[in-house]
Amino acid sequence: MKFGIVAFPSKKLQDLANTYRKRYDSHYSKITPHITLKEAFEADELEIQNISKEIASIAENCAPLKINASRISSFFPTTNVIFFRIEPTEQLKNLHQELQSRINIGKPRHVFIPHITIAQDLTETEHDDIFGQLRMIGVNEQETIDRIHLLYQLEDGSWTTYETYRLTGDEK
Amino acid sequence: MKFGIVAFPSKKLQDLANTYRKRYDSHYSKITPHITLKEAFEADELEIQNISKEIASIAENCAPLKINASRISSFFPTTNVIFFRIEPTEQLKNLHQELQSRINIGKPRHVFIPHITIAQDLTETEHDDIFGQLRMIGVNEQETIDRIHLLYQLEDGSWTTYETYRLTGDEK
Repeated sequence: MKFGIVAFPSKKLQDLANTYRKRYDSHYSKITPHITLKEAFEADELEIQNISKEIASIAENCAPLKINASRISSFFPTTNVIFFRIEPTEQLKNLHQELQSRINIGKPRHVFIPHITIAQDLTETEHDDIFGQLRMIGVNEQETIDRIHLLYQLEDGSWTTYETYRLTGDEK
Repeated sequence: MKFGIVAFPSKKLQDLANTYRKRYDSHYSKITPHITLKEAFEADELEIQNISKEIASIAENCAPLKINASRISSFFPTTNVIFFRIEPTEQLKNLHQELQSRINIGKPRHVFIPHITIAQDLTETEHDDIFGQLRMIGVNEQETIDRIHLLYQLEDGSWTTYETYRLTGDEK
């Protein structure tokens, strides 16, 4: 079974992302707007129970995430993905690093660039056109996320929540 | 903000439901297949924290749910909804009743008939045609669900998980 770890931003920020995603994101209907903390990895029923305990222990020691969606960026030319850039704070980098090292399944395919995808699977012309417009509009949202989620993927590509972990650590 | 409480069945049963939902269910892309335990209700940020504590306390005392999807039924003529009927065990009825009485927001709009919707918003002709076919195919799945989820709804109608509660009570 395929699992992934994400943080969902506030309803306000999800609603904002969806105004773009419904038009430009091919994965719009598969998952609500999110920040990926660990990319999809394979695990069976038994493995996931231990992994879930590891995540719980990491979350207990992690303070609520202060995030800042500061501008609209693109991964072009690597991929035609447009996203809300989330400032890569020490806190986010540490959480990602800890999830990666303690759940030692699946090497990261990319450098960790925290983001909320708002457009993907565009042609190059679409990408240039849409990115040009969205970059001008921009985004500027600060908020605190106090929980993360372990999800699993169904055969049709959609994601269901397996477990929720409250971030209850102290600020460092 | 609009909240609801659901139990997601196994990936296997969700995948099976989705083979029908992708063709026949207008809500297919808004939420993965689920059993509704408490219908949508309104609550604000502060209220939901207390409600979440109530749900946690109910879940702690509820044993994992043994469910039996025993046949394909329809709510026709009340609505043109076709669903996997889940046998209404004492355990399910008690959990529903306890959620209803302890989270005293929003009266139930229907008698509690546990089910997984697989088709809705059909015309009467479509309903009769599809129900005729599906009833013959039927369903027969038994499984145990060990957690329930509190979800909230985004402006586009899709649902994001707010919290997960493990069912850790003893069997009665």
